[in-house]
Amino acid sequence: MIKNIVGEKDFIEYLRGKSATFLLSLSNTETINIEGITQAGLKGFIHLTPTLDAEFVCLGEIRSLKDIPKTNRGVPTPALMTRAVHTLKPFKEIEILNLGLEVTPKVKYFKIHNFNIPPSGSIDKRANIDAEEVFKKGLEFGQKYTPKSDYIILAESVPAGTTTAYATAKALGYSVDGLFSSSFKDSPNSIKEQTVKRALENLSLSDDIFDILGKVSDNMLIFNAGFILGLNGRAPLILAGGTQMAGVLLIVNKILEFMQGEIDSSNLALATTKWVAEDKNSNIKALLEMLSFDINGYYLDFSFSNSKNPLLRLYDTGEAKEGVGAGASLVYGALNGLKSEEIISQVENFFA
Amino acid sequence: MIKNIVGEKDFIEYLRGKSATFLLSLSNTETINIEGITQAGLKGFIHLTPTLDAEFVCLGEIRSLKDIPKTNRGVPTPALMTRAVHTLKPFKEIEILNLGLEVTPKVKYFKIHNFNIPPSGSIDKRANIDAEEVFKKGLEFGQKYTPKSDYIILAESVPAGTTTAYATAKALGYSVDGLFSSSFKDSPNSIKEQTVKRALENLSLSDDIFDILGKVSDNMLIFNAGFILGLNGRAPLILAGGTQMAGVLLIVNKILEFMQGEIDSSNLALATTKWVAEDKNSNIKALLEMLSFDINGYYLDFSFSNSKNPLLRLYDTGEAKEGVGAGASLVYGALNGLKSEEIISQVENFFA
Repeated sequence: MIKNIVGEKDFIEYLRGKSATFLLSLSNTETINIEGITQAGLKGFIHLTPTLDAEFVCLGEIRSLKDIPKTNRGVPTPALMTRAVHTLKPFKEIEILNLGLEVTPKVKYFKIHNFNIPPSGSIDKRANIDAEEVFKKGLEFGQKYTPKSDYIILAESVPAGTTTAYATAKALGYSVDGLFSSSFKDSPNSIKEQTVKRALENLSLSDDIFDILGKVSDNMLIFNAGFILGLNGRAPLILAGGTQMAGVLLIVNKILEFMQGEIDSSNLALATTKWVAEDKNSNIKALLEMLSFDINGYYLDFSFSNSKNPLLRLYDTGEAKEGVGAGASLVYGALNGLKSEEIISQVENFFA
Repeated sequence: MIKNIVGEKDFIEYLRGKSATFLLSLSNTETINIEGITQAGLKGFIHLTPTLDAEFVCLGEIRSLKDIPKTNRGVPTPALMTRAVHTLKPFKEIEILNLGLEVTPKVKYFKIHNFNIPPSGSIDKRANIDAEEVFKKGLEFGQKYTPKSDYIILAESVPAGTTTAYATAKALGYSVDGLFSSSFKDSPNSIKEQTVKRALENLSLSDDIFDILGKVSDNMLIFNAGFILGLNGRAPLILAGGTQMAGVLLIVNKILEFMQGEIDSSNLALATTKWVAEDKNSNIKALLEMLSFDINGYYLDFSFSNSKNPLLRLYDTGEAKEGVGAGASLVYGALNGLKSEEIISQVENFFA
């Protein structure tokens, strides 16, 4: 059953049975090199996580490393859920947005949009992003983008992305302490807090919005804020993610405020997992309620509690939670008649 | 699970969830009148097999004869699989190419492309095809054809077609003895070999490529070679068949060599059944590896071993194997979330 975080069910019900283009936005930030900041991937290969996630969603296999990225305790990437849904009720198109990857995914035929954006630096030492340029690239891409299907699902894979999202929101003046999620069960708050604190120390009073973003954010957050404003409601858009996607919306909100602009958000929504929506260590609802515009937020009441695979059941104890559009994919599956049992069974097959 | 015969999985994964036009190319060759050459149909009515296959795929019933064509031992037409997939995950369009039928399928609404091509003669006494004309018709059709869906599945039903394909490849100078498939479990090699031998005795040293094709080939092989070259990669194209479709590619290859031309084969693939791909009495992989251009070849790991119907289990003992786009239809089904059990159950329903 699809539930609301905020808003009403009409938008998502209107999309029932319609075709979707899955846009997967990927980037690397050196923030991952801070010891203990993320568990999104295999130690020593975390920079490969977005690359491998893209390969797995497109092809059902990974090519740039031998194993599927897992957290240290062995929780597999949420891309498993996205791929399971794509296997059972395929997206019409999958396209990749390279927003600063160290390694390009090894997939042929699938469209990879390249924007000549370099990976960003670690936010504790300034991310060193040309934020205005990245934002403009997102804006222009959104202005000219027309999906080949009825709506767009915009997903992301950015290791350490909840930290950069948290730093971004805080740097932009939002009161967001304790609201951002983590891929850890026991959110490594001290490391995350310290990192954000150090990131914010690099700001100066004369910084404008793009100066701030260039120091503490990541390419995905900035580009997608531009994309949303560029697309401007021309096609229904589901932001596929948790608090990181909420962070994108907080940037949009701040830019609109700064430019005294408005957005028609009636064609815009966010969809995430139950693990994020009901997380006790973060609060996506509170983040969405900070926006000056209305937004619909959704999640599917899906868990692995009935799975026979103990690795998958770890999701239900708070590991991993979201990423690679898993939550929106589950919602998309439900909108197209998939049962949770079928998805669980398909995910289990990947381990067979 | 979709497996590769040759090439990589990227092309077929890119087509996951996309819509397909099913083009069914049909023709008659008098080669069927050679005693014991084929079991594709009911004795005395084998010339009707392509007509009945088309009716069954389009409508789920046959109109030009009372029973579904079966082999002498009772193995039903592979059209059952194609129809089962079309019932469960319909093709967007089905169109018929009449490449020289004795009896036009009795279907309304479905587009039947007519090319004023007469059925061809028996290859042991010269097939008597105006091969250049048939090739040109295929070329022109390919040049102007734009599918109403994302990609094309090009299937065939031509009784005695593996014999004409074998004769064609051999006459064109390929070393293909033992590589072509048969609808028989115990491939009637002596009859087939004798027929091909007699066909090749009609060739003379002065024959050009179209003279050769006109004597030993069939309309489907020649027309579809033209179609592929005419379409020239403008839309993704899956050749739906086994060694006969490999024969089409061998003609394309020879024509390119003859004209010193090139083809962009990145949008071209072949898909067949497991029974062909893993057949011990033929070798489609070897045929595909004779081409001067790269090609992807696929099959679904599908069998009737779990079927409760003993007639269907005969497929697994080597009867029938392929035809009417069965293999590509199974792949198409898998690309759109169908499970093998569902297809088996649907095929079983046709007998209920």
